[in-house]
Amino acid sequence: GNAPATKKPCVEPQRELSYAARAELPNIHPLASKLLKIMEEKQSNLCVSADVTCSEELLQLAESLGPKICMLKTHIDILKDYTLAFSQKLQALSEKHNFLIFEDRKFADIGNTVKHQYEGGVFQISSWSHVVNAHAVPGPGVVKGLSAVGKPLGRGCLLIAQMSSQGSLATGEYTKAVLQMAEEQSDFVIGFICGGKVTEKPEFIHMTPGVQIQAGGDSLGQQYTAPEEVIYSKGSDVIIVGRGVLEASDRLEAAESYRKAGWDAYVKRVSRSGQ
Amino acid sequence: GNAPATKKPCVEPQRELSYAARAELPNIHPLASKLLKIMEEKQSNLCVSADVTCSEELLQLAESLGPKICMLKTHIDILKDYTLAFSQKLQALSEKHNFLIFEDRKFADIGNTVKHQYEGGVFQISSWSHVVNAHAVPGPGVVKGLSAVGKPLGRGCLLIAQMSSQGSLATGEYTKAVLQMAEEQSDFVIGFICGGKVTEKPEFIHMTPGVQIQAGGDSLGQQYTAPEEVIYSKGSDVIIVGRGVLEASDRLEAAESYRKAGWDAYVKRVSRSGQ
Repeated sequence: GNAPATKKPCVEPQRELSYAARAELPNIHPLASKLLKIMEEKQSNLCVSADVTCSEELLQLAESLGPKICMLKTHIDILKDYTLAFSQKLQALSEKHNFLIFEDRKFADIGNTVKHQYEGGVFQISSWSHVVNAHAVPGPGVVKGLSAVGKPLGRGCLLIAQMSSQGSLATGEYTKAVLQMAEEQSDFVIGFICGGKVTEKPEFIHMTPGVQIQAGGDSLGQQYTAPEEVIYSKGSDVIIVGRGVLEASDRLEAAESYRKAGWDAYVKRVSRSGQ
Repeated sequence: GNAPATKKPCVEPQRELSYAARAELPNIHPLASKLLKIMEEKQSNLCVSADVTCSEELLQLAESLGPKICMLKTHIDILKDYTLAFSQKLQALSEKHNFLIFEDRKFADIGNTVKHQYEGGVFQISSWSHVVNAHAVPGPGVVKGLSAVGKPLGRGCLLIAQMSSQGSLATGEYTKAVLQMAEEQSDFVIGFICGGKVTEKPEFIHMTPGVQIQAGGDSLGQQYTAPEEVIYSKGSDVIIVGRGVLEASDRLEAAESYRKAGWDAYVKRVSRSGQ
């Protein structure tokens, strides 16, 4: 409102809004609202990255881990046996277990091209994936192109503001430009892929990849951060976990560990300001 | 060598090396050498962007325009009816007409993910595409991941140093970081996607999209530059033409116009320094 500003404590009040409260914000995107409600209801801010190469294994993952997650992240182009029938089964599982599907396509071309890549081809991504993501490097046209396809379907987009890999160029001025692009197209952009909170606007969802309870990395530049660090210290909303779950001897048990670690860190964060 | 530097004229000599001379440079990547030889032999620095959605139409394009081009650029994920049999037919046409295939995938993920995206999935891109491209935004791991798959196969990669779309973030320091990444991995990176020459190193190939004889743009931020401007004034090596050819009433005639315009601009450039 236009009331005179009052002196605020260093930690701004909206910093600690609950997922449930954010889901009800007047300017929230319907898909962001849906995600926040799922998170609250399932007490899960865990997105599992289903980086497997076989459709059947992916469906089994979705079936068994479905109750633990708010979102399932896919790389549809690493599946050796993708069919549209598979994508229908995946959609059915997302409804059964109440999670969103996020195809991690990292669209990064000019608007006219990403329109076709999102809607058409063998994958028809827009027909089954609630959320996709995009790099901002082509400029705002990439979001316009995706939005032309996805907005009428009620889909949403995450912009990649930062990356977990070593030597990433998504830093500093680049990240600032991503934020501006998101704000200008917030009717389709619902949040960010990032290392931690990059904006104080509570309508945006922050999602962080490269999360693992064990610190470390891989030989190709990936770097891991722990759930508590990501959610409590860095103020992100959703942890994205791949190998931490997939390479565990008991994937369901591992997913539950991550769900609990992520949720506990969130509860601790919200409690901090006494709400 | 370590000889004392001598004063050089403003225009450096290597600036005007012919394609044929560059093909014989001692440090040239074998695939870059092959491309430069094709260009010289066919008097073509034209890459046609085959942005069609039907396999049969793409094969027809490759068959009819093959003699005019040095390279065919694909977006395999906009084809509604892709099969591995199609990719074999496309390979056969590339051999018949002596052009390289360039899948414009714009890889932009961490190394471990792009490895799978490049080698596996439905498309098996590394099995049929001579050249792919990548965004540098994830850091050097993206090239390492691709190289692990493509280098043993003799493939090559173009890094996206600049983009033709409005408001692109691939400028300034970002572009400089791309150049450094390319130099550090020049056993796999053969050149750049760029608006014009970005390095004086003649081993690298410069390829420029957004080329059209008619100036202008589209409603999603694409911006066009003319062949003469790209090759003669900006010092790029290859023009990438999509809609300028595809939307022409006679595609073969249009391709010949672009081949001639690009080649004439190259001849004019090389003649400039009297070589």
